[in-house]
Amino acid sequence: MTPSIKRLAEMFKKFPGIGPRQAERFVYFLLFQNDSYRRDLANQIVDLKEQISLCSSCFRFFQKNTASSSGLCDICSDPSTDKSLIMIVAKDIDLENIKRSGAYTGRYFVLGGLLPILEKHPEEKIRTTKLKDLLTTTLEKDNLREVIVALSANPEGDYTADFLKKYIGDIASATNPSTQIKISVLGRGLSTGTELEYSDSDTIKNALKNRE
Amino acid sequence: MTPSIKRLAEMFKKFPGIGPRQAERFVYFLLFQNDSYRRDLANQIVDLKEQISLCSSCFRFFQKNTASSSGLCDICSDPSTDKSLIMIVAKDIDLENIKRSGAYTGRYFVLGGLLPILEKHPEEKIRTTKLKDLLTTTLEKDNLREVIVALSANPEGDYTADFLKKYIGDIASATNPSTQIKISVLGRGLSTGTELEYSDSDTIKNALKNRE
Amino acid sequence: MTPSIKRLAEMFKKFPGIGPRQAERFVYFLLFQNDSYRRDLANQIVDLKEQISLCSSCFRFFQKNTASSSGLCDICSDPSTDKSLIMIVAKDIDLENIKRSGAYTGRYFVLGGLLPILEKHPEEKIRTTKLKDLLTTTLEKDNLREVIVALSANPEGDYTADFLKKYIGDIASATNPSTQIKISVLGRGLSTGTELEYSDSDTIKNALKNRE
Amino acid sequence: MTPSIKRLAEMFKKFPGIGPRQAERFVYFLLFQNDSYRRDLANQIVDLKEQISLCSSCFRFFQKNTASSSGLCDICSDPSTDKSLIMIVAKDIDLENIKRSGAYTGRYFVLGGLLPILEKHPEEKIRTTKLKDLLTTTLEKDNLREVIVALSANPEGDYTADFLKKYIGDIASATNPSTQIKISVLGRGLSTGTELEYSDSDTIKNALKNRE
Repeated sequence: MTPSIKRLAEMFKKFPGIGPRQAERFVYFLLFQNDSYRRDLANQIVDLKEQISLCSSCFRFFQKNTASSSGLCDICSDPSTDKSLIMIVAKDIDLENIKRSGAYTGRYFVLGGLLPILEKHPEEKIRTTKLKDLLTTTLEKDNLREVIVALSANPEGDYTADFLKKYIGDIASATNPSTQIKISVLGRGLSTGTELEYSDSDTIKNALKNRE
Repeated sequence: MTPSIKRLAEMFKKFPGIGPRQAERFVYFLLFQNDSYRRDLANQIVDLKEQISLCSSCFRFFQKNTASSSGLCDICSDPSTDKSLIMIVAKDIDLENIKRSGAYTGRYFVLGGLLPILEKHPEEKIRTTKLKDLLTTTLEKDNLREVIVALSANPEGDYTADFLKKYIGDIASATNPSTQIKISVLGRGLSTGTELEYSDSDTIKNALKNRE
Repeated sequence: MTPSIKRLAEMFKKFPGIGPRQAERFVYFLLFQNDSYRRDLANQIVDLKEQISLCSSCFRFFQKNTASSSGLCDICSDPSTDKSLIMIVAKDIDLENIKRSGAYTGRYFVLGGLLPILEKHPEEKIRTTKLKDLLTTTLEKDNLREVIVALSANPEGDYTADFLKKYIGDIASATNPSTQIKISVLGRGLSTGTELEYSDSDTIKNALKNRE
Repeated sequence: MTPSIKRLAEMFKKFPGIGPRQAERFVYFLLFQNDSYRRDLANQIVDLKEQISLCSSCFRFFQKNTASSSGLCDICSDPSTDKSLIMIVAKDIDLENIKRSGAYTGRYFVLGGLLPILEKHPEEKIRTTKLKDLLTTTLEKDNLREVIVALSANPEGDYTADFLKKYIGDIASATNPSTQIKISVLGRGLSTGTELEYSDSDTIKNALKNRE
C-alpha cells in the first residue's frame, strides 16, 4: 500500500475499537474530504492540550478558561455544586453520562480506571493518593456527608468498590474520628430493558430487596 | 423435500425462535436418533397434559400428584410458603427464574402475559378476574401484607404494573377498607453487567435513588 | 422445576443449536398448544422411521413408497435422472439445497459427513466402502462420465475433497483402467453477496482464474 | 460536554462507521496520548494532500514521487505491468485488496463507485468519461487484449457490470471495429468459507457451471 496511507492507517489502528480495515477506510475517507476539513481536524487534535486541562480537584478533563486560573473545572468551581457529596467514577466518559442524566448535583472524582484484580500493587494504577488528598482536605474544611462509589456492575467494579469502601472509611476515621460520613454504592436491581426471564439470581435478589 | 420431513419441519417451525432451516435440521437430527429416543420424546410430548396441571390458585403449571387432589401446586400447598406475600409474574418461565434465585419464599400468581398497550379491553388478555378472586379470598382469610408486582423493565411491563397497582388497590379498599396492604414493584438500578458508560438516564437515576 | 417439564426440556436440549433456556421455552410452548397438536407432533416423530427409508444406492433419506420395494429413493429410481453423473455431498441437507437450485439432474451420494482431520482412520467415519461399492457397480454397468465432489469451501471440506479425488481415481483405474471418468470439484469465485473489499486472497485468485 | 471535546467528537462522527459514543472515546483516547503523538497524527492528516496524488491514468491514490512528474502512479509507470489487461474496480480499497492477493499483474482503473440503480444519469456518478478516454487511447496505442470488470457480487455491482460490458463494447467497436478485445467479469462460485447448506441457488448454479 501507499506508504503515507499505510502510515496514517497505522495510527488510526491504535484508536479504541479500530481494526486494520477500518483504519484504512478512515484514510480514504480523509483523502476524499477537502483541505479545510483536514486542516480543521488536524488543528483540533493539536489544540486539545491547549484547550483542555485536568481539574486539580476532581481530575476530569475540562475546557480551559482564560478568565480563571484556579485550575478547577466548571463543576468544582460552580458555587451551586453540592460540596457535601463526592461521587467517585472510573472514567470521564462515565461522569459525562451521569451528568447527562441530571440526577446528581454534587462533586465528582475521576479515579482513572478500576483496580486490576490479581496485581501486586493495584492501588498504584488508580488515583488513590489524589483521592486521599481530596478527602482529607474536604473532611477538614467542608461539611462532607456522603461519598458515592459509582462503578460499573461487573467483577472489577465490585472489587474496586470493596477496596474503596474500606480505604475511604480508614481515611475518614483517621482524619476526623467523630465524623459520620456515609459511604454508598449505586443501587442494584432491574435496569431499563431487563427481562425477568433472562435475569441472573443476583439481579433478582437485589430487585426484590430494593422493591418499593 | 421428502413430504414426511417437510411436514414435521413445518411443525417445528412453529416452535418459538425456530426458522425453516433449523426446523429441517431438527428432523434430520431425529432421523439419526434411534427408535427408543424418538418414542420416548413422543410419549413425553403426549403425556404432558396428563402429567401437568394448572394450579387453581396461582395458575402455574405443576406436576400432577396422584396422592393429592386439591388442584393446588406444590408451592401453594406447601405449609412453609409465606401466605402473607403474593408475587405477580407474567409467565411461568419468569416464576421459575425467580424461584431459582432462592430470594423469595411467598406465593405467586401467573398473570398469563402483559397488558397490551393500545387495545380496547386489554384486561381481558390477562387473568385479571382470577387475580381479583384470589385477592378477595386472601384478604378475607389470610393475613396478606404485600403484593409484589414482578414484571420485566420494559414499556409493556411498566404499563401493566401501573394498571395492577391501581387494580389491586381498588380491590383491597373494596374488600377490606381498614387493611393496609403494601403494593410494591421490583427495585430498579444497575443490573449485573451494566456499564455506566452505556447506561440510560433512567437507570442512572434509579441507581442513585436506591444507593445503599 | 416441575419434573415432567424438566425431563422434556432435557430432551430438547439435545436438539442441534438448542440451549437450556430455549429447551424450556419449547416445553411451555407445547403446554399452551391443544391436545391434537401435541398428538400430531408425537405421531409424526414416531412415524418418521416407518415413513422414511435410507436409499440403498445414494444413502439419502426418502419417503417410503408402498408401491415399490426397490429400496431406491425417488431420484435413484427416476428414469430421467442422468446416470452418467454422480455428485458426492456430505449431508442430506446439502443435497436438498442443491436440488432446490434446479441446476443438477444427475445422481447423488451422501457421504455422511466430512473426513475429520487428525484422526487415525478417518475414512471409517464416512461411507467410503459404500462409495466404493457404488462406483465399482456403476463403472461396470453404467456409462459414468463424471463424479462431482460437492463439499463446503472450508478446511475439512478441502481435506475430504483431496482424499476423495485420489480414492475415486484409484477405484476407477482398478475397476476399468481404460475409462476416462472426470473427477471435478465445485467452482470457486465470488459467491452472492461477496464484497471485494473483504475477500480473502484465495477467493480473489479463484475469481480471477474463473473469470468469464 | 466540554466544547472542545464535543467539537472534535462531532468531526470523528463523520468517519465511516463511527457513532457518537465511539467518537467521544476517540477524543478521550487522544487526550491520554502525549503531545508528539497528537502532533504526528495532525501532521499526517494535513500532509495527505501533499504526499498523495490521483493517478492521471488509473485514478487511484498514490504516493507522490519527487523524482518523477509524469502524474502516473507506480503501477501505471511500472514497465513490468501488463499493459494488455485493464481491470476496472469500484474503489481504491478493492484495488489494494486485489493487489495484495498477488494474482493480477495488469493495469487498473478506479471507477469511483458503482452505478446507482434508479437514478436519471447514473453514469455521471462514476468516471465513465475518463474510462472512455483511457480505453480510446489504449485501443489506439497498446495491444489491449482484455478488460476485466471486477466488482462486488451484489445487485449494484451486477447492474454496473452489465452497463460497463455494453459501454466498453461500444467504445471498442467505435474505436477499432476490427479489434477483438475480451470483456470479462470475475468468476462466481463458492468463496472461502461458503457452506453448501446455506448457499443460495445462484451460487450453487455458478459453482456447478464452473466446476473443475
